[in-house]
Amino acid sequence: MLLLRHCRSLTPFSPLNIQRRLVTPVVASCAVRLCSSRSEDQRFYYQQLHSPYWRYGLAGLLAGTGAVLAYGLHHHKAERVDTSVLSEEKTSSFPTISQEEVTKHRSLEDGVWVTFKGGVYDITEFVAMHPGGDKILLAAGGALEPFWALYAVHNQDHVLEILSEYKVGELSVEDLRKQQAVKSSDPYSTDPERHPVLHINSLKPFNAEPPPEILTDSYITPSAIFFKRNHLPVPQVDPASFQLHVEGLPGGVLTLSLQDLKTRFPKHTVTATLQCAGNRRSEMNKVKLVKGLNWGIAAISNATWGGAKLRDVLLAAGYNPDVAQWAHHVQFEGLDKDVTGTTYGASIPLKKAVSEDGDVLLAYEMNGEDLPADHGFPLRVVVPGTVGARNVKWLGKIIVSAEESSSHWQQNDYKGFSPGTDWDTVDFKSAPAIQELPIQSAITTPADGSTIDRSQETVTVKGYAWSGGGREVVRVDVSLDGGKSWQVAQLQSSEKGLPPGPSPPTGQAWAWKLWEIEAPLPPETQEVEIICKAVDNSYNMQPDSVPPIWNLRGVLSNAWHRVKVKIREDEE
Amino acid sequence: MLLLRHCRSLTPFSPLNIQRRLVTPVVASCAVRLCSSRSEDQRFYYQQLHSPYWRYGLAGLLAGTGAVLAYGLHHHKAERVDTSVLSEEKTSSFPTISQEEVTKHRSLEDGVWVTFKGGVYDITEFVAMHPGGDKILLAAGGALEPFWALYAVHNQDHVLEILSEYKVGELSVEDLRKQQAVKSSDPYSTDPERHPVLHINSLKPFNAEPPPEILTDSYITPSAIFFKRNHLPVPQVDPASFQLHVEGLPGGVLTLSLQDLKTRFPKHTVTATLQCAGNRRSEMNKVKLVKGLNWGIAAISNATWGGAKLRDVLLAAGYNPDVAQWAHHVQFEGLDKDVTGTTYGASIPLKKAVSEDGDVLLAYEMNGEDLPADHGFPLRVVVPGTVGARNVKWLGKIIVSAEESSSHWQQNDYKGFSPGTDWDTVDFKSAPAIQELPIQSAITTPADGSTIDRSQETVTVKGYAWSGGGREVVRVDVSLDGGKSWQVAQLQSSEKGLPPGPSPPTGQAWAWKLWEIEAPLPPETQEVEIICKAVDNSYNMQPDSVPPIWNLRGVLSNAWHRVKVKIREDEE
Repeated sequence: MLLLRHCRSLTPFSPLNIQRRLVTPVVASCAVRLCSSRSEDQRFYYQQLHSPYWRYGLAGLLAGTGAVLAYGLHHHKAERVDTSVLSEEKTSSFPTISQEEVTKHRSLEDGVWVTFKGGVYDITEFVAMHPGGDKILLAAGGALEPFWALYAVHNQDHVLEILSEYKVGELSVEDLRKQQAVKSSDPYSTDPERHPVLHINSLKPFNAEPPPEILTDSYITPSAIFFKRNHLPVPQVDPASFQLHVEGLPGGVLTLSLQDLKTRFPKHTVTATLQCAGNRRSEMNKVKLVKGLNWGIAAISNATWGGAKLRDVLLAAGYNPDVAQWAHHVQFEGLDKDVTGTTYGASIPLKKAVSEDGDVLLAYEMNGEDLPADHGFPLRVVVPGTVGARNVKWLGKIIVSAEESSSHWQQNDYKGFSPGTDWDTVDFKSAPAIQELPIQSAITTPADGSTIDRSQETVTVKGYAWSGGGREVVRVDVSLDGGKSWQVAQLQSSEKGLPPGPSPPTGQAWAWKLWEIEAPLPPETQEVEIICKAVDNSYNMQPDSVPPIWNLRGVLSNAWHRVKVKIREDEE
Repeated sequence: MLLLRHCRSLTPFSPLNIQRRLVTPVVASCAVRLCSSRSEDQRFYYQQLHSPYWRYGLAGLLAGTGAVLAYGLHHHKAERVDTSVLSEEKTSSFPTISQEEVTKHRSLEDGVWVTFKGGVYDITEFVAMHPGGDKILLAAGGALEPFWALYAVHNQDHVLEILSEYKVGELSVEDLRKQQAVKSSDPYSTDPERHPVLHINSLKPFNAEPPPEILTDSYITPSAIFFKRNHLPVPQVDPASFQLHVEGLPGGVLTLSLQDLKTRFPKHTVTATLQCAGNRRSEMNKVKLVKGLNWGIAAISNATWGGAKLRDVLLAAGYNPDVAQWAHHVQFEGLDKDVTGTTYGASIPLKKAVSEDGDVLLAYEMNGEDLPADHGFPLRVVVPGTVGARNVKWLGKIIVSAEESSSHWQQNDYKGFSPGTDWDTVDFKSAPAIQELPIQSAITTPADGSTIDRSQETVTVKGYAWSGGGREVVRVDVSLDGGKSWQVAQLQSSEKGLPPGPSPPTGQAWAWKLWEIEAPLPPETQEVEIICKAVDNSYNMQPDSVPPIWNLRGVLSNAWHRVKVKIREDEE
């Protein structure tokens, strides 16, 4: 116990926590983010990341996403956690405590109790020492398991040792059974483990984005931190018995196994950026509340996808140009279902689906490996240049049709409206389903609210830029004076240090560009507003401000991105 | 003479001028526009149009473009002008006057002298009575012929009668010969007659746009008022001996006569909007001077084009998909030449040229008639969705190539740059040639600076909206409070009163939409800022303001369009 008390003075860089040093700032940020109101969190999160206290840890974190990903190695350990400590305790004479009693202890005032594998723990005194910060309060009054499952860093023997010090009782057998029953009846119980670095917007269904600084640390986003956007629980699909059904073409229904898709059609790889329609919704929420997940700027990622061309599969199913006389859409149905059995669904224009240059893939690989469960294992459609929502995951059925998908997400969601349209006046039929997305860019470094020392003289500004429909980003302008003057950033279309890839053919620029500029700090000011705006090769520009593009669903948030940073003057 | 003096009190609605009533405001506006500084003109022009004085005439003018076009009927009269008055005068004993002497009389102070067919006229006293206003001063000290040729309304017997009253002498024979010689050596001397309603930005080469109110009076812009954008003199092309050469394909050079184009290939018609890259440049000029013609908001028009598909002609010349392995561009050369013999030229991506859905035409018809001389007679390329500059007129040669056109207009012009780029720092190689244009819209009614009576209670706002690349305009938002709140306008995709045309296939929305909204006048304000902004089906939006998209060539001016109107309160 005495040893543990010392933790307070040792964190975050005690020898005990040597491995935790890199992940600490991120975990801390997640915690803060989940526990307090959103706009405050972000400020605090970024302040944390950029305060001198965390700088050392952050430097390591940003040195390479590889470092962050190392924590993924702990995932599998979760399955074979050492319960010896707990078994040993079971022979002791701790009192039996009901879940009702545990539930009463959910705050520092009432005490913070948690359960873990049938044990009850009063961790009130540990809260302040928790390397992950206040996030631990999310588990107060309930079970630790779901949180530790998300943040695999806990699955280490010394963490269990720490926990054992706080034991105060045994959960009643009846309540323990209930806990286990809840878990197994939870449709999300089979959702995969996720990388702890992700900022979670919603746990069930799981929606999360990587921290912005990490996002643009690599040109190809590692799958583990690629933003996750699930509408429903992740279905468990057996790749051996998986079947894809292709309907609506003269050849009748074509049914293909995963093996068929891999062997009967040439494999193509396409590097394509996917972006959620709601990326940057949080900026619209600041104008006026909208309906939807409060995405930051990182609901966008870039991966290399491998699979069969949808065009080839449609041709195999009997597609011919006559079909285009009556059919105008290709519908997709996922294997993910809600409680009524309704699947996720969407559609794209037939023209995009069958175009040789459309590059629509039935992808079974992401970044050179099988699709991860969160990204549609074993098969998803990747529609380059098109909003994420049409890139249906866990793809089970393709229907060539005269009509768009009738799904909620195609008909009554993911559409843009005028700022003057509200939920009383909206007519979803009056707007087209979002397909191609407009020009977008954002600043990932420095973070909003961070502080720069005047002695640095310059600031390095980094970010991403992308446009839908295969339109190539041709320029990113950056302003350090709130938009009065502009400098042109350096564009990057491959991993840093590698030569740029070949220019994509006209209309097939599916991947984002990262960008960077080192700009002199403006003199005689203590706060700088940094802005970025991108231009694509149709010379579309981002709108200046959020309110005029505000819409009730908070989609298509692509105004100039702005961050404010403070300049700390030298003390002398 | 006495009769003429009475004109002062009779204009503009004297029985004498009954036919002039409709055209008067427009001619007046042209005059003001040409004689004073640009930004002032526009204000004055619009004030004129909307002052009660002109309202009656304007109402007639706007009732239908047909009324305006009626003046075109006078064109041919110019060729057979009645010179009886002048012949008669020649027998009289007017003194001989040199051009040098005439040139000294160029102002109201020094007297305003002009020449016409060898006669010298002191029209000082007539200036104030001129129905076309001060524009008459443009001719001061020189010949009337070029101005009367532009404004055919003068070619009427009673105008010659009026002129004869002011005769003061005969131009010396030597100077008359010089005048005629100048005319014949002028490379622009064979340029066609133009419609007098056009606002002229440059006479040589001829560049002009219609008045905004007339522009959106018809969905299909009549050819006579379709904006004119010439880089060089209009070439005289004999349709019988005309040849088009198609080069760079495996089949060798294919040479086609106009007859070949009309008979060997199916005729297609496409309704497509063309827009000059410099449309709305005047708004950029107000931020900071740019290089280029000071276009208002009407360097955009919509026509129905008829001709052979470029794709069909390229296939006939031997195009096959293997060509796309090495060729990426299709270059066009016009028959219009500068003094060094250099022709106008441009190129488009091969992909656009050969795409079945690209709808690129080798057009020999405009609005159901042979192409007018100003629009490329006998053949031009029409590249729907692409900036006007690539729609090469008087087309003489097509070259399939690995390279873009090397012409000045492709390489060192018609490109977009950051607002921070100036003529000292610009690197034209760093930006792509403009092809597809971004989303655009503007307000054509009411005019900036006009006044509305409070008693009207509502204001009808009208305009156009268009996007490049076949992207369809899906919404136009209108604000009457400077952008704080927005209403959705009614879109119109056919002539008013006719049913809307069928929705264009995805990616083939080549024609603009006109729009209209009747909105209540905001209470308790004497000035209203009306703004429009459009959205296309890739949900691209117009940028809010001009300065952040300002560029040294003043192209791509597509910020929100704003007009300010005054509300005149009722007198009671």
